[in-house]
Amino acid sequence: MIIDALNCSNWDESLFLEAQAGGVTCAHVTLAVWETARETLHQVEKWNRFFRDYPELIMRVTSADDIRQAKQLGKVGIMLGFQNCSPIEDDLGLVEIFHQLGIRVMQITYNNASLLGSGCYEPNDGGLTRFGREVVAEMNRIGMVVDLSHVGERTTLDAIQASEIPVAVTHSNPHWLSHIPRNKSETVLRELAAADGMLGCSLYPFLIGGPQVTLQQFCESMARAAELMGAEKLGIGTDLVRKCTPEYLDWLRSGRWTQAKSYGPAGPDAKPGWPEWQDWFKSPLDFGAVADGLRAAGFSEQETAGIMGENWLRFFEKVIG
Amino acid sequence: MIIDALNCSNWDESLFLEAQAGGVTCAHVTLAVWETARETLHQVEKWNRFFRDYPELIMRVTSADDIRQAKQLGKVGIMLGFQNCSPIEDDLGLVEIFHQLGIRVMQITYNNASLLGSGCYEPNDGGLTRFGREVVAEMNRIGMVVDLSHVGERTTLDAIQASEIPVAVTHSNPHWLSHIPRNKSETVLRELAAADGMLGCSLYPFLIGGPQVTLQQFCESMARAAELMGAEKLGIGTDLVRKCTPEYLDWLRSGRWTQAKSYGPAGPDAKPGWPEWQDWFKSPLDFGAVADGLRAAGFSEQETAGIMGENWLRFFEKVIG
Repeated sequence: MIIDALNCSNWDESLFLEAQAGGVTCAHVTLAVWETARETLHQVEKWNRFFRDYPELIMRVTSADDIRQAKQLGKVGIMLGFQNCSPIEDDLGLVEIFHQLGIRVMQITYNNASLLGSGCYEPNDGGLTRFGREVVAEMNRIGMVVDLSHVGERTTLDAIQASEIPVAVTHSNPHWLSHIPRNKSETVLRELAAADGMLGCSLYPFLIGGPQVTLQQFCESMARAAELMGAEKLGIGTDLVRKCTPEYLDWLRSGRWTQAKSYGPAGPDAKPGWPEWQDWFKSPLDFGAVADGLRAAGFSEQETAGIMGENWLRFFEKVIG
Repeated sequence: MIIDALNCSNWDESLFLEAQAGGVTCAHVTLAVWETARETLHQVEKWNRFFRDYPELIMRVTSADDIRQAKQLGKVGIMLGFQNCSPIEDDLGLVEIFHQLGIRVMQITYNNASLLGSGCYEPNDGGLTRFGREVVAEMNRIGMVVDLSHVGERTTLDAIQASEIPVAVTHSNPHWLSHIPRNKSETVLRELAAADGMLGCSLYPFLIGGPQVTLQQFCESMARAAELMGAEKLGIGTDLVRKCTPEYLDWLRSGRWTQAKSYGPAGPDAKPGWPEWQDWFKSPLDFGAVADGLRAAGFSEQETAGIMGENWLRFFEKVIG
């Protein structure tokens, strides 16, 4: 079973077919980064339409059982999520509303400070806010994954502590693979594992240290993470951006919060366009190669199966039911 | 079983208790009259909170089976609905979104012209609009009751024709009881019945012809409606406004569409405050008296049980499942 804990692609029929061909049982997709509540409803509508238009290819998943059913039916299970808290605006009740609409993952911040806490590109991180603590408690109550990928260090640590159920970093790597703010410190990884949380290692070029980094180097980093956290706390969250447009990249980076083009403090990402991906991972068709790489790096069959999907399944079972 | 097909009260714990004491198994409540999509989400939140806070008193009902369960548990089943299409704005996909959030009834217009058609107080009625036809088809597809109570005559007739499943007038009376635009012509009643639709007779003073009208007169009007439509096409939709504030009355009447106080063209309603109700019906505690009145007007036990709730149950089973 392959679960991709973050796939930010500009989905269409061809990408559903590609994910199915790659054996993907579940992909967590992004409906919002800067969108308001109203704008996000339109994104939910888009997915309602997809589920109606491609019933043989994809299905909505909102629970671990749904994921198992997707596996059985050979469909790509789609888990809806947000990479920011912008959809809930300043309104705690919207967490339940979006849960009713099928959302199962929400990231606390996206690079910048949000109403919940600080993002990974903020020079100062004030930690989880008063509203942030309310929202984490509500997400716990209702069964929504607290995602800490683009979140600042202090806010990340605060959220790990505040949450009464395990949290996740769905798509980041350890600092040792690439020491950039979007990746995570050993402190974070240790606290995350201690709280039974998950790390989804990302295949985004900039997060692995550039496209020249080899599959072997990536898998060795995962082996090191396994030593620190335990192999059962690891998964994959590719951060694939298939068919995404330059306009979407501008939206992700600059939203409405700046009129400049903002590329973040990162080096290799500070370019106007989408990056080239490494030749060993360009699409879901390459997941088999990643599994081979994990085995070559010393992971057992069982550990490899865990990292490729079963660890996420177990995590989702605990958090969203 | 008592089903109140429209109760517009300002609900709180005391009113849940009152409805329960009155034997109400299901009440259709109003979340929106002029509210936008975003504002309506806040109303859904309010009800989510009620369902969490009063689990012994009320339950969300979204199907006929839910209503039967409410009956069995002695709870007041709450069916969420809109008295206008303002929540869907200009966006067809919002019909499904609000269905996902539990909405099961939407009125096409509220007194004024809407994007779907003309209201009962418009001097000219252009009938169901292009968007209106799309929305009726979508409501049919998805299982949402098309409510035509505050709708203009031509738009009402168009919607009856356009809908492929039965529609309802949840809270109006026949013109013969009070000849005002908010009540319905014999033509409408005949077409409604021919399409297997339902008429919910209202107990709102202004709609029965004033508080001096007797229970006997009201029940004789229902007997006349039964001759025209069949007793199985009749139900009750009180339009109760328990604990509603003067500010809410202003909102209902004037929304944001006028800065004047608009009381509509109706006579007895053209007063600033909420009306006094007739002494024989002031709250859900008086439903028993209405049932007695129906029997006295010649309805059989079975017909009376139908009008008090079972006809609505059968209708909801067909329309929302």
